[in-house]
Amino acid sequence: MFIYLDNAATTAPDKTILDRAVREYEEEYFNPSALYREGRNAKKTIDTARENILSFFKGRKLVFTSCGTESDNTAIFSFARRGNVVTTEGEHSAVYKSFEYLRQKGIEVRYAKLIDGGAVDVDDLLKKIDGNTCFCSVVHVNNETGAINDVNNIAKKVKEINPRIVFHTDAVQSFLKIPYSFCSEIDLISISAHKVKALKGVGALIYNADLHINPLMIGGGQEGGIRSGTENVLGIKVLGDCFLKYAPETQKNFDMISDVRRAFLEKLDKSLFKIISPNFSSPYVLSLSAPKLRGEVIQTVMDDLGIIIGKGSACSSKAPHSRVLKAFIRDNAVLDGAIRISFIFDTKKDDALKAAEILNQTVKKLYEKIVI
Amino acid sequence: MFIYLDNAATTAPDKTILDRAVREYEEEYFNPSALYREGRNAKKTIDTARENILSFFKGRKLVFTSCGTESDNTAIFSFARRGNVVTTEGEHSAVYKSFEYLRQKGIEVRYAKLIDGGAVDVDDLLKKIDGNTCFCSVVHVNNETGAINDVNNIAKKVKEINPRIVFHTDAVQSFLKIPYSFCSEIDLISISAHKVKALKGVGALIYNADLHINPLMIGGGQEGGIRSGTENVLGIKVLGDCFLKYAPETQKNFDMISDVRRAFLEKLDKSLFKIISPNFSSPYVLSLSAPKLRGEVIQTVMDDLGIIIGKGSACSSKAPHSRVLKAFIRDNAVLDGAIRISFIFDTKKDDALKAAEILNQTVKKLYEKIVI
Repeated sequence: MFIYLDNAATTAPDKTILDRAVREYEEEYFNPSALYREGRNAKKTIDTARENILSFFKGRKLVFTSCGTESDNTAIFSFARRGNVVTTEGEHSAVYKSFEYLRQKGIEVRYAKLIDGGAVDVDDLLKKIDGNTCFCSVVHVNNETGAINDVNNIAKKVKEINPRIVFHTDAVQSFLKIPYSFCSEIDLISISAHKVKALKGVGALIYNADLHINPLMIGGGQEGGIRSGTENVLGIKVLGDCFLKYAPETQKNFDMISDVRRAFLEKLDKSLFKIISPNFSSPYVLSLSAPKLRGEVIQTVMDDLGIIIGKGSACSSKAPHSRVLKAFIRDNAVLDGAIRISFIFDTKKDDALKAAEILNQTVKKLYEKIVI
Repeated sequence: MFIYLDNAATTAPDKTILDRAVREYEEEYFNPSALYREGRNAKKTIDTARENILSFFKGRKLVFTSCGTESDNTAIFSFARRGNVVTTEGEHSAVYKSFEYLRQKGIEVRYAKLIDGGAVDVDDLLKKIDGNTCFCSVVHVNNETGAINDVNNIAKKVKEINPRIVFHTDAVQSFLKIPYSFCSEIDLISISAHKVKALKGVGALIYNADLHINPLMIGGGQEGGIRSGTENVLGIKVLGDCFLKYAPETQKNFDMISDVRRAFLEKLDKSLFKIISPNFSSPYVLSLSAPKLRGEVIQTVMDDLGIIIGKGSACSSKAPHSRVLKAFIRDNAVLDGAIRISFIFDTKKDDALKAAEILNQTVKKLYEKIVI
């Protein structure tokens, strides 16, 4: 047995939901574009998942995609097309690198700085917005530190400066985790299924109904022409079912995981670690550093002891230092030793406490080795 | 119980493979980008599926995508960028509509005509190729009629005229179905998982190793930077396992389904139907028409009788007449009455015979109603 605390990278699927959906799919595998009854039922399965999710995003539409990255890309390449575009240094690569691509294409790209802990420096962001800004993207919860950006407040201020700006938020790490009601100033919201106990291979882009999305994928005209390609019926069903199960529990889970995080932090030997995450953080993500040690060494030793923890974003795990952490941490020793602990709805407090204890022991031993 | 004969639209998943893969995924759901052992194992799962499939496509590389449409789009938007581009009137919408999009962007788009049965008119195609052609896409097996294009021969002739052309084939309907070894003149090959008893939500683009693919999706740099977004580990595993099971049986299944098709055709009341599929056709797809009747009516009545059949491409099932059939059939009565029967590896001859019998009865009754 092992304890899995890298839930910001991906989560174990909800076994009950997955097993039931697979049994159903094995009988009802039909093509949602087919016009016979069974095909229409497959389409209904998709539309039911869509409607269920949209019940939490009133007045909006939703297009299913293959992942959070596709959702982000669809939003960005639909609307970030002229003038200048503004984002933050704390974005996931799916946003950050898409902006780099826009820069190569001749669009002026502006990155707002981060404050300590990884939230965006709102004043700096607002200074970068002007009459020529056409698109602004701000991550809701930073995937490396858990820092929460109050995107409602930011979107409102951004639109006070220039109401024509299309505002996007990557909500992959906040969806079903942070109780939050997106205001109408937020035009586009990206979510991902596998971060909330559904399957890899499904995401969604939720958007204000009056927006015209430019398809990233052209073909058979599925998803109202916005996203061609045969729909991932099984994956969408699992996401819809996870939504039905976990959405009503968002506040309860938030409180419960806040308690798990508090207990974990209490157990942690403060003489060994620097806490990177800010106070205003998602309880699901905790960024720490054991300065001078190497995060990947801690990770490997912990893994051998049966505790799986993260090291910044899994999606950019090959880079020596995290781009996001570097944006607000100057001390290389802290960057070297950075690790990420992340929880999910069914993380047990006892497991978290056990992990904290083993982490204390591990890091202590590694420090002793350095001294020798 | 019902008999499912719309396998060109989608197939039932292989239950044994899917159940095993789900059980495995429920324990091994890790992020393939994570650098701990479990993450590396998830990466290995993907790479093993890749290597297995590539063992049939020597000297090539493979990028996993979310569907055949994404594979086609990636190929087209990577290389169809200047001068003129050539394709056929028999393409799937994922190719055809992408070419329409290119036309809107100012690229000269040329469509080669079809001969009777839906194969491309090779002479017409070659006439459209010139020194300014940069990209050519020809479907291997037509998804509506099963017509086989000898893409090896076509690619060679195309490159005799202009060796700089990048040649793509959509092999979604031939993969694991038609014993065929793609020659090196074919640069790019699109395949889809759910057409061969794997899951919806996975496709692949197989390409010559010296080609530089332009990513459609930008982000964390997964799939060697060519396709960002967390990989659909479960779906890729199921595709890889279906490949291992069905690839060695391609010839055997081809012969077996050829026999099923022959029996079906023998049983069919020739006084009622016009056969649209050509002689040189995939045995897996059979296009018929009951002239003057309406395909969707036949489909609905058959569905009520427990036989699920297709009506042209599921992906464009809302259009009154099939674009592909219209390309070589002038008679509206034949277009009206078009239906598609399509088989898969485990289609039983008895089921096909029963379906043919019920189809005969159904169409006969429908004709009687017209006469009255």
